[in-house]
Amino acid sequence: MRKFMDVDFLLQSETAKRLYAAVENLPIIDWHCHLDPQDIARDKVYTNLTELWLKTDHYKWRAMRACGIDEEYITGAKSDFEKFKKWAAAIEHCIGNPLYHWTHLELQRVFDCYTPLSAKTAKEIWEHCKTVLKKGLKVSDILQKFNVEAICTSDDPCDTLEFHRSIAYNSDNSRTVNLKPTFRPSALLNVENPEWSAYIGKLSDISRVTVYDWESLIEAAVNRVDYFNSHNCNMADHALDPPVYVGANEKKLNKIITKALTFTTSGERLTADEINGFKTEMLIALAKKYNELGWSMQLHMGAARQVNTSMTAILGADKGYDCMGDENYADALAHILDRLEISESLPRTFLFGLNPKENDLLTVIAGCFQGNCRKSDKPAKAKVQVGPAWWFNDHKDGIELQLRAFANNGVLAHFAGMLTDSRSYLSYARHEYFRRILCNLIGTWVENGEYPADFEKLEEIVKGVAYYNARGYFLNS
Amino acid sequence: MRKFMDVDFLLQSETAKRLYAAVENLPIIDWHCHLDPQDIARDKVYTNLTELWLKTDHYKWRAMRACGIDEEYITGAKSDFEKFKKWAAAIEHCIGNPLYHWTHLELQRVFDCYTPLSAKTAKEIWEHCKTVLKKGLKVSDILQKFNVEAICTSDDPCDTLEFHRSIAYNSDNSRTVNLKPTFRPSALLNVENPEWSAYIGKLSDISRVTVYDWESLIEAAVNRVDYFNSHNCNMADHALDPPVYVGANEKKLNKIITKALTFTTSGERLTADEINGFKTEMLIALAKKYNELGWSMQLHMGAARQVNTSMTAILGADKGYDCMGDENYADALAHILDRLEISESLPRTFLFGLNPKENDLLTVIAGCFQGNCRKSDKPAKAKVQVGPAWWFNDHKDGIELQLRAFANNGVLAHFAGMLTDSRSYLSYARHEYFRRILCNLIGTWVENGEYPADFEKLEEIVKGVAYYNARGYFLNS
Amino acid sequence: MRKFMDVDFLLQSETAKRLYAAVENLPIIDWHCHLDPQDIARDKVYTNLTELWLKTDHYKWRAMRACGIDEEYITGAKSDFEKFKKWAAAIEHCIGNPLYHWTHLELQRVFDCYTPLSAKTAKEIWEHCKTVLKKGLKVSDILQKFNVEAICTSDDPCDTLEFHRSIAYNSDNSRTVNLKPTFRPSALLNVENPEWSAYIGKLSDISRVTVYDWESLIEAAVNRVDYFNSHNCNMADHALDPPVYVGANEKKLNKIITKALTFTTSGERLTADEINGFKTEMLIALAKKYNELGWSMQLHMGAARQVNTSMTAILGADKGYDCMGDENYADALAHILDRLEISESLPRTFLFGLNPKENDLLTVIAGCFQGNCRKSDKPAKAKVQVGPAWWFNDHKDGIELQLRAFANNGVLAHFAGMLTDSRSYLSYARHEYFRRILCNLIGTWVENGEYPADFEKLEEIVKGVAYYNARGYFLNS
Repeated sequence: MRKFMDVDFLLQSETAKRLYAAVENLPIIDWHCHLDPQDIARDKVYTNLTELWLKTDHYKWRAMRACGIDEEYITGAKSDFEKFKKWAAAIEHCIGNPLYHWTHLELQRVFDCYTPLSAKTAKEIWEHCKTVLKKGLKVSDILQKFNVEAICTSDDPCDTLEFHRSIAYNSDNSRTVNLKPTFRPSALLNVENPEWSAYIGKLSDISRVTVYDWESLIEAAVNRVDYFNSHNCNMADHALDPPVYVGANEKKLNKIITKALTFTTSGERLTADEINGFKTEMLIALAKKYNELGWSMQLHMGAARQVNTSMTAILGADKGYDCMGDENYADALAHILDRLEISESLPRTFLFGLNPKENDLLTVIAGCFQGNCRKSDKPAKAKVQVGPAWWFNDHKDGIELQLRAFANNGVLAHFAGMLTDSRSYLSYARHEYFRRILCNLIGTWVENGEYPADFEKLEEIVKGVAYYNARGYFLNS
Repeated sequence: MRKFMDVDFLLQSETAKRLYAAVENLPIIDWHCHLDPQDIARDKVYTNLTELWLKTDHYKWRAMRACGIDEEYITGAKSDFEKFKKWAAAIEHCIGNPLYHWTHLELQRVFDCYTPLSAKTAKEIWEHCKTVLKKGLKVSDILQKFNVEAICTSDDPCDTLEFHRSIAYNSDNSRTVNLKPTFRPSALLNVENPEWSAYIGKLSDISRVTVYDWESLIEAAVNRVDYFNSHNCNMADHALDPPVYVGANEKKLNKIITKALTFTTSGERLTADEINGFKTEMLIALAKKYNELGWSMQLHMGAARQVNTSMTAILGADKGYDCMGDENYADALAHILDRLEISESLPRTFLFGLNPKENDLLTVIAGCFQGNCRKSDKPAKAKVQVGPAWWFNDHKDGIELQLRAFANNGVLAHFAGMLTDSRSYLSYARHEYFRRILCNLIGTWVENGEYPADFEKLEEIVKGVAYYNARGYFLNS
Repeated sequence: MRKFMDVDFLLQSETAKRLYAAVENLPIIDWHCHLDPQDIARDKVYTNLTELWLKTDHYKWRAMRACGIDEEYITGAKSDFEKFKKWAAAIEHCIGNPLYHWTHLELQRVFDCYTPLSAKTAKEIWEHCKTVLKKGLKVSDILQKFNVEAICTSDDPCDTLEFHRSIAYNSDNSRTVNLKPTFRPSALLNVENPEWSAYIGKLSDISRVTVYDWESLIEAAVNRVDYFNSHNCNMADHALDPPVYVGANEKKLNKIITKALTFTTSGERLTADEINGFKTEMLIALAKKYNELGWSMQLHMGAARQVNTSMTAILGADKGYDCMGDENYADALAHILDRLEISESLPRTFLFGLNPKENDLLTVIAGCFQGNCRKSDKPAKAKVQVGPAWWFNDHKDGIELQLRAFANNGVLAHFAGMLTDSRSYLSYARHEYFRRILCNLIGTWVENGEYPADFEKLEEIVKGVAYYNARGYFLNS
């Protein structure tokens, strides 16, 4: 029997260990997350484990709820220590769940604590971590521990990006984190939202373009893309829940916009056809702009959000009441990519499907849209590719499935690798988790004689997936 | 090489063996099956293997048909021994099929027979078992051999439940099986069925409530739920093929009911919208009642029944001509659960998807609907959860996939565990099969250092999933 | 660590090796491929690796595109050696991809070359193979090396089949390959195609039946089926992208045909309902005829073809721009099979789903339609069954998944086994790949004690799946 989560955690062969040694100390590029740039810029200080772990992490909240813990101890008014005790009691039941591994990786790496967390050890671990935290743990401390080189946050087009910049994170300013914004225009695309009209007002103000029709809307949107571009952004992220494809001409789009802008007075709702027409054309128009600027585009597809109305009404969005949908969207997605390809304006694109039944499909669709990004560019490596196992799939089985699907139907060596998609600084441990799983899988192939034991090449591949590919794609270095 | 199906069958590590030793002798709670309560109550006697194995088991029939065996030897008029010989010739081709393992577990546990069944050994095994069966094998003998504590049958709302009671199954009455009914209102919900009107007549009679509109229908239905409740029932089971969600108000429901009740004279069929509206509201209304009584609710989703019209016309329903469907129903299911949650009347619910592509989806949806069942209750453990691998998924790969999906996205320690869904008494061997797979999976995790070798906790978890969780959820003990 | 792709490649146990020894030298029956019968009949000569590997293989083209290689080196005007060098540079990045294994199996078996291909070794391997190829490599040489007994090509109903015959492939004519046509009526069924009317003209000419309505169309089609039947054909293949089921009567079909035949002048397009009605009834009518003749029918389902419009416009069809769809078709497929079953005219049928999410579904549907093919026949073994992992699923994981799904829900011993679906002669190495994976899987089961170590039976099973079942089903021997 192997020891619990020791240095060789998840590395089941000598080859796996050797490959992991090659990537273990590489920096982290977190090319998609939901961290708050303000916290990073102001170097927020954490004073206890509950602040770090339980204030924003809906993964943990879901597990606690499934353990029959009262909401008072989850998002409610109970004290930090009481909440922590409940979490400690919950985690020991989460056998096989990634939370179990993440929790202990985080305790080991940040707190040098190797005791399994449980109801019994809760007090001891709380005290141990308190000692570590006695001077407070700053965001910069965490980033330094995990060797984080770049962070791409998710930002609304109307955001001023005042907190994004290269930020020193050690005392002598010798090391910095590159804090990059990502253009996430959900509010802009969600034309069915009763708040859309108000949002467009905000957009008009910040872009200084009065939006009243399609042309002015695109002008305002492009203005913000340019603003983001001048603030170190080279990535956009669209949530397609799920992708739709309904072509619409400018006349129709103008009508849709007028209808949406006057909804608050008219009460007249957009039809599904209008909503989908708008979303399709907006995505196409923005993608063309991204491509002009050499940006990358992420498509996060197939989430079903806020399915529990009662709890969402009490707690708001992003509180653990989202799930995956199961709608089929291959046809819509292929049409979106094809339309952009026809106009030679398909940017580097990352496909993320939330329902794992789409894993194979997405890798195969990606393989139909390779080539150069901009007309003048050389063909890119894996220009359209599938993103890493995401959200509900971010566990050992899900990561391995995604890697296998990528390898079976694509060229794994060009995979951009891991991101956290997290709201917690401690989640950088997930990069270690991913790297171990990657090295173990490739190690198994080599041990089984399925790929030559050419370590020069093998190390190039794992280093690429762990770090260098992302650096090339997102930091252009 | 390991010996064929010996004591360590499927237990691939020392940890797996140790965990299995902890659950091997625990009683069985079969919380869903299709056994005939009358056979149990009257302690039916079996005199040969064909009676036990081949009279009602459509799993075996399907395998025989796929072996090119004439229907005469399957459901036809051939003698029991001739049928048995055909089955023996078929089973040796079923490599990798769960029938192969079930067959030999059953021979080993019930008949102390360790010879692999094949065309060659058919006669020898038939004779061996004949010796064991010379005095006849009673249902109670089988239940005692497998240590069955409780059985939940599937019963129509109009059933009188005359055979359900606690039944002694050994000579000195010291051991009994708790024979519990389950409220399975398929006939009540299938309003599109031409026989529905006749069924409602039967319901009116037995409930002494004349059904002519929505209000009287609910009154009659609730009357039967109460009747079941007073007869040791605390579980309902709905077959949603697949789930639909179409809201309907009372006026519309009254119209639907009138139309359905007069179908035999008018010949006017219900529209899809009407059928779905009725099914939605009936499910919601019943679920509220279940919740009031503290019942559990099973949702069996996504079967496609009787797809072979010709053979169904000859043999009737449940003869091996059902399959799984592939319709998407995430949205409908989420709406059903949400609607119940809004009115604080969502009971403890078990989700069973027949198509394994829905495994991940269902575990994730379940995670959105935790909390307390009744307003006054404390939050429940895994209140909404996915049921065990079911029907076409009840094999080694399917069971392991379900366990992994449950663990990856939920809290495995609170899983209610195995049921047989069977029409055969010998199928209790499937609980052993499940327990071995469960212990092997968890054993592998521990051996790989993914969970601490804390055997106190580990045994608590496997015992919970194998027995105690079901006891708590269904026997309230 | 095991050596790279040595004699025990993919055989992870002694049992696996022993089973593989039993099938290693069995002949190959390739019961579906896209080879050009003319090349076989004329015994085409190949003079370099690029001709063999890169002229027609869209699998390799996709991998090269995903490596950022310019199209000039893929389908363009660059020299054969330049193209080969690019491929050599690409393949070393394809870790985990079946192309990696196929490439090296092909180098080993055909060229006795054991050096891993890479940018570094490209020149050396090119030269090595040049020596082997100095007299040219004939198609017959390749077929002899791989011990190919029968090849079923894919042929249009209007094909004259002039190249199909039993063809000697060694100097003394002592060994021959049975080159069989397959009736693939895609052009006939694609009534929505603007070229359909012209195609029907061609059909009228070759069948000498003037087609102007449903009856004459069926007469012409049946005429061609009979022609194929008299030319050694006993197999049809339909591409259902995806299956649809819409019943239509003769009156409606006549209207559809008139509309389609006059499209070029009227410009009036068929509705979806009309297209689907035609496709449904044409499939049904043809299947009945196949059944009368004792043919087998393949249904290839769920491809989404030519999704990249720009590249298809430049390069044409089948150039690597197809993908899988994700539409649900269980209901349509079940209706098709049921309709044929009702009229006792369902032929032996093979179901191929391109999206692996349908694996389990298809094996389960197949299990509902067993029995005899023609009314007078005895019941067939696995009459309706799932075909081998196909196209995007033809890799180690996909093959194993398909085998497991087949075994879990059917009778694996009756599986018809592997086919190449390829456009390259070297692809016969994929039969070796499949056989190794099959023997390894079954070997693992035996090693784990899940099936008895009865090698007589085991060898019968693996030999059946590797060769004899296909021989019985397709060569009637």
